[in-house]
Amino acid sequence: MPKQVDHRARREALALALWRVVDRHGWSGATMRAVARESGISLGQLQHYFPSRTAMLSFAMEHAASQTSHRITRQLEALDRPPHPRAVLRVVLAEMLPLGAEARATSRMHAAYVLDALHDEALRELAGAELRQGRAMVERLIRQAIADEQIGADRDPAVETDLLLALTGFTPLLELGVIEPAAALAAIDAHLDRLFPAAS
Amino acid sequence: MPKQVDHRARREALALALWRVVDRHGWSGATMRAVARESGISLGQLQHYFPSRTAMLSFAMEHAASQTSHRITRQLEALDRPPHPRAVLRVVLAEMLPLGAEARATSRMHAAYVLDALHDEALRELAGAELRQGRAMVERLIRQAIADEQIGADRDPAVETDLLLALTGFTPLLELGVIEPAAALAAIDAHLDRLFPAAS
Repeated sequence: MPKQVDHRARREALALALWRVVDRHGWSGATMRAVARESGISLGQLQHYFPSRTAMLSFAMEHAASQTSHRITRQLEALDRPPHPRAVLRVVLAEMLPLGAEARATSRMHAAYVLDALHDEALRELAGAELRQGRAMVERLIRQAIADEQIGADRDPAVETDLLLALTGFTPLLELGVIEPAAALAAIDAHLDRLFPAAS
Repeated sequence: MPKQVDHRARREALALALWRVVDRHGWSGATMRAVARESGISLGQLQHYFPSRTAMLSFAMEHAASQTSHRITRQLEALDRPPHPRAVLRVVLAEMLPLGAEARATSRMHAAYVLDALHDEALRELAGAELRQGRAMVERLIRQAIADEQIGADRDPAVETDLLLALTGFTPLLELGVIEPAAALAAIDAHLDRLFPAAS
C-alpha cells in the first residue's frame, strides 16, 4: 500500500477506535490514552497520527461526515433519474437521525463534537463550516424546487431550509426512547407533504 | 433558615457552580473535584450533598428544568387571559432554544446530559421521563386546540406535537452561529402560522 494511503487508512482505523470508546464511555472518556489503549498502540504512536486530542476529534468528525455523505449518496443512486427533490430531502433527513447503527454512531459523535466546540474555537469553526455547507446545499435544492414549481412560490427558501434542518431535533427524542423511529419518519413525511403538495 | 431549606439552597448553589464549570470546561470537565473547587469546599463536603456524580448531574438537570419552567411561567403570565395556544407554544419553544443567557445555560446542560444518559441507565430514565412529560403537555394543548377549532381537524395531534418538539433542532445551528436568533424565531412563527391559520 502506498505510504499516503496507509497513513489515511490507519487514521480511519483510529477514528473507528475513538467511536467505540465514545460509544462505551461517553465523550468525556475519549482521551488520547483511552483511544491508544483501544487500538492496542502506545500513546506516542497515537501522537504520530494525531498530535492533539483536537486534531483527533476533528479528523473523526470529518470522517463521520464523509461516511454520512457516502450513505446518502448510495441511497440517492437508488432513486429515479432525475430524483425528485422530496425524495432527496427525505434521504438526507433520515440519514441525519440516529435510526440505523452507523447513523447513530455519527449522530452521537456530532452531538458531542458540537458541545466540545463551544469551548474550542478551532473545533467551533470547523463544525460551523460543515453545518453551513450542509445548509447551503439544502437551500439550493429548495430554491431550485421553487423555480421548478414543485414548491409553492409563496414559500420563503431560507425559512423552509431552516425548518427542514430543525427536524434533526428528533435526535434526543429518539435517543431517549420518547418517540419511535416510525413516528419521526411519519412527521418528516407530513412536513415534506406540505412542502411539496403535488408530490404527495 | 430551617435545615431542610438550607440544604436545598446549598444544593442549588452547588448546581450553579456545576453550570459554571460546564460552561468553562465542557461536560467532560464537570468532575466532583472541579465542582468542589469551584464552590470553595472540599470533595468530602460536596459528597455530603451529592453522594455521586450521577446524583449531582441529576439534581442539576432537575434544577435546570425547574428554572426553565419558571421562565416560561413568568412569560405566560404576561399573555392575555386565557392565553391563545399559539402564544403559549411560541413562549415554550423560544425558551427551549439557547437565545438568552439562562436558556443557553440550561440548553447546554441538557444536551450534555442527554449524551451522558446514553451511557447511564438511571440518567436515561430520568431524562426520558422529563421529555415525555413535556411532550404530553404539548400534545394536550394541541388536542384542545383541535377541539376548539383553532387547529384544523385534519391535523394529526401526535405528528404535530412531534414536529413542534423537533424545532429544538435549531439549537446546534444557533450555538455554532449558522443561523441567527431572528431566523430561528421567524421559522418558528412560519410553522405556527400554518398550524393556527386563523391566528396569524
